[in-house]
Amino acid sequence: MASRICDSVLVTGSNRGIGLELVRQLVDSALRPIKIFAGCRHPNEPKAQELQELAQKHQDVITVVQLDINDPDSITKALKLVEAKLEDKGLNLIINNAGVNNKKSLADTGKSEMVQVFSTNVVGPMLVAKDFHPLLCKAANQFPHETSMSCSRSAIINVSTYVSSITLCPTNFSSAPMYPYRVSKAALNMLTRCLAEDFKKDGILVMALHPGWVQTEMGGSKAPLKTAESVKGMLEVITRLTEKDSGTLLDWKGESIPW
Amino acid sequence: MASRICDSVLVTGSNRGIGLELVRQLVDSALRPIKIFAGCRHPNEPKAQELQELAQKHQDVITVVQLDINDPDSITKALKLVEAKLEDKGLNLIINNAGVNNKKSLADTGKSEMVQVFSTNVVGPMLVAKDFHPLLCKAANQFPHETSMSCSRSAIINVSTYVSSITLCPTNFSSAPMYPYRVSKAALNMLTRCLAEDFKKDGILVMALHPGWVQTEMGGSKAPLKTAESVKGMLEVITRLTEKDSGTLLDWKGESIPW
Repeated sequence: MASRICDSVLVTGSNRGIGLELVRQLVDSALRPIKIFAGCRHPNEPKAQELQELAQKHQDVITVVQLDINDPDSITKALKLVEAKLEDKGLNLIINNAGVNNKKSLADTGKSEMVQVFSTNVVGPMLVAKDFHPLLCKAANQFPHETSMSCSRSAIINVSTYVSSITLCPTNFSSAPMYPYRVSKAALNMLTRCLAEDFKKDGILVMALHPGWVQTEMGGSKAPLKTAESVKGMLEVITRLTEKDSGTLLDWKGESIPW
Repeated sequence: MASRICDSVLVTGSNRGIGLELVRQLVDSALRPIKIFAGCRHPNEPKAQELQELAQKHQDVITVVQLDINDPDSITKALKLVEAKLEDKGLNLIINNAGVNNKKSLADTGKSEMVQVFSTNVVGPMLVAKDFHPLLCKAANQFPHETSMSCSRSAIINVSTYVSSITLCPTNFSSAPMYPYRVSKAALNMLTRCLAEDFKKDGILVMALHPGWVQTEMGGSKAPLKTAESVKGMLEVITRLTEKDSGTLLDWKGESIPW
């Protein structure tokens, strides 16, 4: 019998787009987690209505958590709530999905755009990883005879992008000359790689995942990939990850993207 | 007869370490530039005394320029001064050397450390590149029949580091688990690559250069490489660069470092 994806998962930025679809497919899965924590910046605003309805329908599984990754205090509060809900158990999986896409070119980019996008796309995931680290360790230790890594044991998935690749930049810069976004996501890849090294001793898998160019508010309507299709692929990849994948950048089909 | 390295150059962070040595070796060179602009955050403080003495000795060549790359207004003011001093000529070369090394590990890193280091090491060089772009274009256009790139024509050198390499992170993370520095320098590499693509049409070469692990205030006394030796190598590399090197990351010996 196939085992469930994981017992518990936190998805950040889950009120729309890829985040919302991740929560939806996770809860609809036959192998669904016991607890899904759906992080969302403004859980009581109209933007979160779809998520709230989904959570209402699956009250036993989904907990909506106020989580603004730009606000260190909000991350600490979310940790306390998740910790209490898990009782004495660890948290298996974090999907750092919350992020912004600033498509500005050099002419329209100043200090504030660069710092804002970096804060959301890099510092946010770093603080989530740091604050939730003890809960991830606890989850890893619940598999006492386990030496291999997996998302069912303990893992962090950072949602990155194809255009984070410094190697591939010359092939796609002219069609996407977005400085704040590209720079922040290359920085996120380095963060991912550092965390993978740092948390190896704890049995925590850390990797970066490119969801494809998806038809979301962020991706725009010209994107070739439907959100549901992307998320289906992402979850298949997530389910298959082992320690050899820690510290890598893969796409939603499981294919490697060069740094 | 060998031609000079370039007619004009701006070196940021030039009051100490590699920056000061760059100015010293440039002015001591038989093929020295006609004008050297030595950017420095606090030109009137004791920290800048050595630079001021050097500038005094070579008043015809060196101009000390107040330049705090964390302050967009300071960059704009420096541009105006450099522009006036160049009269109708362009600026050939910018060496974005100013930067900080924050060696903090994850446990000691919070939002403020990450944002501060990113601002200095990434946003600063970006704003310098953006503001000085017209002067670099003017320099490139002074070679009307020239289609190739070089530092004597028009170029930006971003001082990066070996530990900016995402590829190599697993080989050196344990000895240098410095999150803010590594993350910022990987981001600087992406910035370099974007600028190289963006400025290609203008004939401006953009690349990133690793000076080696150097005995400076930043590198510490355990570093294996003397500042003078590193800067000698850097200037040899700079002199040899052609368009095939635009968008690359090289070390002070001219060897390629993977992204």
